[in-house]
Amino acid sequence: MKVAIIGTGLIGASLGLALRKSDQVRTVVGHDANNANLAAALTKGALDSATTNLTDAADGADVVVLAVPPSVIEEVAAAVAPHMAEGAVLTDVGSVKQDVVAAMERAAAGRVQVVGGHPMAGSHEHGPEAAIADMFVGATWLLTPTPSTSDDAVERISTLVTAVGAQVVVVDPKAHDLLVAVISHVPQLTATTLMTLAAERARKEDARLLLLAGGGFRDATRVAASNPEMWLQICRENKDAIVQVLDEYAARIGQLRMMLHDFDSERLNTLLTDAREARNAMPGKGGVSGQLVELRVVIPDSPGAIANITSTVSGLDINIEDIGIDHAPDGQRGQMRLAVSGFEAAQKAHDALSEGGYEVLEIAS
Amino acid sequence: MKVAIIGTGLIGASLGLALRKSDQVRTVVGHDANNANLAAALTKGALDSATTNLTDAADGADVVVLAVPPSVIEEVAAAVAPHMAEGAVLTDVGSVKQDVVAAMERAAAGRVQVVGGHPMAGSHEHGPEAAIADMFVGATWLLTPTPSTSDDAVERISTLVTAVGAQVVVVDPKAHDLLVAVISHVPQLTATTLMTLAAERARKEDARLLLLAGGGFRDATRVAASNPEMWLQICRENKDAIVQVLDEYAARIGQLRMMLHDFDSERLNTLLTDAREARNAMPGKGGVSGQLVELRVVIPDSPGAIANITSTVSGLDINIEDIGIDHAPDGQRGQMRLAVSGFEAAQKAHDALSEGGYEVLEIAS
Repeated sequence: MKVAIIGTGLIGASLGLALRKSDQVRTVVGHDANNANLAAALTKGALDSATTNLTDAADGADVVVLAVPPSVIEEVAAAVAPHMAEGAVLTDVGSVKQDVVAAMERAAAGRVQVVGGHPMAGSHEHGPEAAIADMFVGATWLLTPTPSTSDDAVERISTLVTAVGAQVVVVDPKAHDLLVAVISHVPQLTATTLMTLAAERARKEDARLLLLAGGGFRDATRVAASNPEMWLQICRENKDAIVQVLDEYAARIGQLRMMLHDFDSERLNTLLTDAREARNAMPGKGGVSGQLVELRVVIPDSPGAIANITSTVSGLDINIEDIGIDHAPDGQRGQMRLAVSGFEAAQKAHDALSEGGYEVLEIAS
Repeated sequence: MKVAIIGTGLIGASLGLALRKSDQVRTVVGHDANNANLAAALTKGALDSATTNLTDAADGADVVVLAVPPSVIEEVAAAVAPHMAEGAVLTDVGSVKQDVVAAMERAAAGRVQVVGGHPMAGSHEHGPEAAIADMFVGATWLLTPTPSTSDDAVERISTLVTAVGAQVVVVDPKAHDLLVAVISHVPQLTATTLMTLAAERARKEDARLLLLAGGGFRDATRVAASNPEMWLQICRENKDAIVQVLDEYAARIGQLRMMLHDFDSERLNTLLTDAREARNAMPGKGGVSGQLVELRVVIPDSPGAIANITSTVSGLDINIEDIGIDHAPDGQRGQMRLAVSGFEAAQKAHDALSEGGYEVLEIAS
């Protein structure tokens, strides 16, 4: 199989590295509008050959992967489609699908098959220099065929996705965009909103407000620190789905506000209970049989303390299922959260940590 | 100083344990409406003496701490106030302050001083059996005097709070309730709303939706798993402040919705950038001089892996500033987030982990 990767940035170059390791692929050809990017991908070993000529890259390719910005995808797709092999497949790696898939299908004009792709992996870094072959190991890779996509085309892309260590999930392009709006885009924007509200109140009313924020607020607003440029682009691309989900979210906030105002304790209780059940039912780390029990341990601010705490627990043959740090309001001390499976394990860990001189604040499930 | 603790549940008994260690306190007397709770607190060593008689408990006390439900606080305050020592101080440990402080002041009728208190510590556990002396170490303890509170009274309670290892922050009762609505109560309810929205869409549309949720969604909804009973009580007590903050939040969501709909990229960019700056400016762990750089490491699902990863990094004399686990969508693999200070340290950690056979997925700041 000849695979052409158009756009050898971080994702394109990482894919090249991974595909070159696979026996499914005979050759990986790369193209990038930026010569330095292309050369760096070649140096990195991400490509068998590199060309600055788009037609040459696409020539006879069985699969072309477009790893270029959504704004140019239709233009690039139209340039490559006529040169691809008979029965070839065009795919992409963007995080929003409906418009991009439609653009690729228009450009392909029925000559080649189109399968939209969205690897749920990535990095805050940029460029081929940061590429790694294991980028997609363990990740989910969403594929978004349309009614005009053949099963063979989906099969071919699935083979490549599996070869780089990712797991295929097939979903309709429109459903995809709503799905990511729900699990990623709206949560990003609500975190942004919460952070802005708190920061403005802190500025106008009491600067200590943010000093007093605990682990819950930190968790809820963590993604607000994400790259604004990237999110602006996602908002642009997935505007319709985001607005739709945000409207539903706003309606639910409005209902909640009325429940509070009228103090409808029955409905509030149902809401809180349903949310708790849903959150607890969320798939966690596999193979955890017992109930997760959390320990909170005070960590002294010294190198080695965290390693010491985790080693103490692991030394008892107890698997740590989850781990985290909450920083104390004064910034000088932190608490470590360690989740283990079952109360017995938690008690053993508690005893060993106490003996080791650590303050265990609580055990809770 | 004689301190009476009315209500020897988890908080009351933990406070008793901590105060008995302090040389500021001569004797700790406990009272609880539940005899078994009282006996358990005595057995635990949380009290010098225990009495089922409220008047005896309060008799000559220099400080009375009410660790009882808000619904009975005025009644209990009225019962103890007449028996307290000259110049004594009445305080409490509730998480909402305005109404409770007003109730205590009515009950005290000017005979004793009132200083509302809110220790920002606790546990998901209940009862004196779970009490620990170190419950309040490193925690913030908000005190909410009113214009009628003397400086001496605030000073006396501050001495006790400091003695149990907590840090005093003084704030007006009404400001307190808005502050906790912003940093705790509204974030709880928005997480609940987000979780419910996603769970219902998963149920109605595609059950895979929640399987695909990544670390961002998990962080944003973590507190939705909290105890509904506790939150129902907090909502009841702090209804007015929560509704006020929720209204502001809803207005901001509405503005955001319009920015998206009209695609006002300038305002959206400002919003995202401001939120990022505010989140990054949030006080973290103290003493971190360099820029925090995050590594993502694939963790095999085996006991000891987490300890091994943290030990490898600490063994290089690199302090781990933050730590966390994101579970892969399939639940079978996880990634560990490790934040260290500066790119040089991150690169050293990266190299050592790679040599140790771990896959380091990215380094990002």
